[in-house]
Amino acid sequence: MGKTDWKEEAKELKGKVAKLKKRLRRIAREVAEEVADKAGAVETAIGQAIAPAKGKAALKTSPLAPKAGFPALPVIDGVEFAAVQAGVRYQGRTDVTLIRLAPGTAVAGAFTRSATRAACILDCQAKLAQAPETDAGAAILVNSGNANAFTGLVGENSVAAICAAVAQVASVPAGRVFTSSTGVIGEPLPHDRIIAKLPDLVGALAADAMEPAARAIMTTDTFPKGAMAEIEGEGGTIRIAGIAKGSGMIAPDMATMLVYIFTDAKIPPALLQRMVSRQVDDTFNCITVDSDTSTSDALIVAATGRSAAAEIRDLRSKTAREFESALRGVMLDLAQQVVRDGEGATKFVEIQVTGAADVADAHRVAMAIANSPLVKTAIAGQDANWGRIVAAVGKSGARADRDRLAIRFGEFVVAEKGQRAAGYDEAAASAYMKRDELVIGVDLGLGTAARTVWTCDLTHQYIDINADYRS
Amino acid sequence: MGKTDWKEEAKELKGKVAKLKKRLRRIAREVAEEVADKAGAVETAIGQAIAPAKGKAALKTSPLAPKAGFPALPVIDGVEFAAVQAGVRYQGRTDVTLIRLAPGTAVAGAFTRSATRAACILDCQAKLAQAPETDAGAAILVNSGNANAFTGLVGENSVAAICAAVAQVASVPAGRVFTSSTGVIGEPLPHDRIIAKLPDLVGALAADAMEPAARAIMTTDTFPKGAMAEIEGEGGTIRIAGIAKGSGMIAPDMATMLVYIFTDAKIPPALLQRMVSRQVDDTFNCITVDSDTSTSDALIVAATGRSAAAEIRDLRSKTAREFESALRGVMLDLAQQVVRDGEGATKFVEIQVTGAADVADAHRVAMAIANSPLVKTAIAGQDANWGRIVAAVGKSGARADRDRLAIRFGEFVVAEKGQRAAGYDEAAASAYMKRDELVIGVDLGLGTAARTVWTCDLTHQYIDINADYRS
Repeated sequence: MGKTDWKEEAKELKGKVAKLKKRLRRIAREVAEEVADKAGAVETAIGQAIAPAKGKAALKTSPLAPKAGFPALPVIDGVEFAAVQAGVRYQGRTDVTLIRLAPGTAVAGAFTRSATRAACILDCQAKLAQAPETDAGAAILVNSGNANAFTGLVGENSVAAICAAVAQVASVPAGRVFTSSTGVIGEPLPHDRIIAKLPDLVGALAADAMEPAARAIMTTDTFPKGAMAEIEGEGGTIRIAGIAKGSGMIAPDMATMLVYIFTDAKIPPALLQRMVSRQVDDTFNCITVDSDTSTSDALIVAATGRSAAAEIRDLRSKTAREFESALRGVMLDLAQQVVRDGEGATKFVEIQVTGAADVADAHRVAMAIANSPLVKTAIAGQDANWGRIVAAVGKSGARADRDRLAIRFGEFVVAEKGQRAAGYDEAAASAYMKRDELVIGVDLGLGTAARTVWTCDLTHQYIDINADYRS
Repeated sequence: MGKTDWKEEAKELKGKVAKLKKRLRRIAREVAEEVADKAGAVETAIGQAIAPAKGKAALKTSPLAPKAGFPALPVIDGVEFAAVQAGVRYQGRTDVTLIRLAPGTAVAGAFTRSATRAACILDCQAKLAQAPETDAGAAILVNSGNANAFTGLVGENSVAAICAAVAQVASVPAGRVFTSSTGVIGEPLPHDRIIAKLPDLVGALAADAMEPAARAIMTTDTFPKGAMAEIEGEGGTIRIAGIAKGSGMIAPDMATMLVYIFTDAKIPPALLQRMVSRQVDDTFNCITVDSDTSTSDALIVAATGRSAAAEIRDLRSKTAREFESALRGVMLDLAQQVVRDGEGATKFVEIQVTGAADVADAHRVAMAIANSPLVKTAIAGQDANWGRIVAAVGKSGARADRDRLAIRFGEFVVAEKGQRAAGYDEAAASAYMKRDELVIGVDLGLGTAARTVWTCDLTHQYIDINADYRS
């Protein structure tokens, strides 16, 4: 004991102090790390929590997009595509598409019936109403980012300037240049930016560039849309391939959004137009995202006649019927893809109305249900709230008898003869509503007319996208 | 130096160790407190951030509710009110209201035109179509929580059972008992719960209990709605007081939601009905929250004849004109309060359409704008996106000429002659959109017909409320 003891104790204490200091530093470091970690996690959590309130966040691909992605489209002999970045409104993405159609191509179309339709729509309609010069070739020029709608004489001049410039660089008559514009309404179109890119576009034209074209025509779309079909004609294969864009302002009236379908079939323009006109009614006119009809809906179908198959001359021939059916399939596929990309959509909903007094009534009832904000929000909430379907039928204006009405979700009958079905099972109905794809059946019990339409649900993201689209 | 040095050093070191330990404890405590503080703040922040996504949170009073609160309504001689908790669906709040009308009361009404209207609506319509027994008194029984709509024969039996029971306890003929039910569609009404409370209701009847009645008829409403007017008749004052409920499923067709208006005017039922029918068109039929027409809209106007003023016998007399104008004022006030309580509403929007070819067209255009999800979400986002108004005009189906169309926000002309106005000022338009109350003017430039309608914006809260209403 004594001297050495104190020394020992002092040494020990020194060691303790050093250890404590070390411990303090370690604790400080650990606390700092943990706090930083937690702060990061909290930041992420807050970010995710408030993400729905931030309209500007990049849109994720719709959960309803086709699982297989963009389809492998066949090359349509006589059609070439090119897309460039012209900075019409968007930066860092392609926004102008040129499509060149070979001499001999028949062109048909269907367009919005909106009373405030855009300058390019009026121009397309005027051109298609004239006797077609199929020998001279044709072109389609599409820009996204600006709809050139409600832009008065300035807008008409933009269309004329673009058509003249395309005619020159693509060597087709100006009367056979069809333009489409999609995006913001009411702002003058900076057509100089488009015209400046035409030489690049013509230089880049390629028969296999249909997917880049499908991407360049997108606005709030979250995936490019394509569809195809092939049939065997007399003496050769006939191919059909189409692309579309559309996500919001979808309640087509006579046509839909922007849709371009190409085929190598040999078919006179008048015959093609008749097929397009009669198939548009129960394809594009049977979809709705938000009940808002666009100023700019356009469907153009071009047939190059390059297939080895014999010309289609008679609507009643076997090939004509097969071709029209295949064309209808491509139209319906594209129309349904537009619904699958409905702004904010999480559910794809098929509404089957049967037993109506006539088709107009069936359509009215189906659309009243498809456009009802209360039905659409209930679907978003996975709530089997069939009472709102009853209310929608009632408000539709169609002939309906409460006591003959039956409603089913998929195979489950939820209501019949004017009241809840005897075997109604809320748990089963609720479980059904959790699916991604729903079928709502309504039988009016009055007649034999039917109509099926397609829509999506109404979610927070629809509001995010549309409360902040222009800015 | 030597012995004492070591001892001193050891003491010093001991002190250091103690201090370090103390410091360590203090730091630990401070860190814990700070972390707890921060965690609390983070929790609050996250809570606020995700609050809009939680449908079940209690609804706050609409920011558009009348600043003065529920008005001081005059007592209408001959009318008594009572409200109780019957647990029809809601717990802990009043949900059944009885209104007793003195002998001599004239009753008039307007009801939904929905093809799937509720049993109580059909019953009211049938009773009002009969020659009125005004000498016998009358009663109105309203329940919230269950609409008794699409309930078939069971629902009709519920109405009959309630009417018989009310007739007995209130000493009025069953043919003069009018019922309304509002709430979930498609579920059988537990009418026994209502009938069991009738003795309590009769015992509680009081002339000054109109506000409790206004509260008991609410469903997703965030404030009770009342309005009043007084005019001087020949020989005395005539008083009018009314209450209403309504917040979602608001696109009345011939009437609106549940509205009860009382007056002590002495007026024959037929004359009262004529006034009600012609005033309903540009009041309740000019509002929309979500384009969804209810199965249960009902407006009942009861005149007790207890005023000292002379009877109103001629529609063209000074008192008749003043009375009709005052009645219209009360109807419009209640209709606008329903819009101010629109589900999730943050903006009250008046849409003035002028220059239409006829009133039907003006109405069509105004409603197309008022019901456009794209217009309503732009307003929610405070975005002066007038292009969507152009699209809504275009889709309305009314006669419209793009190049004669003018649009203004309040006093700002934003578009005219088919394009953006020359002096358009985006900053001024954006500043205007930040207001709570907006006026959108659309002049079609075709004729002299006009229509004004009222609506609200479409916000996240509308989806919260309606994706989760039943549960």
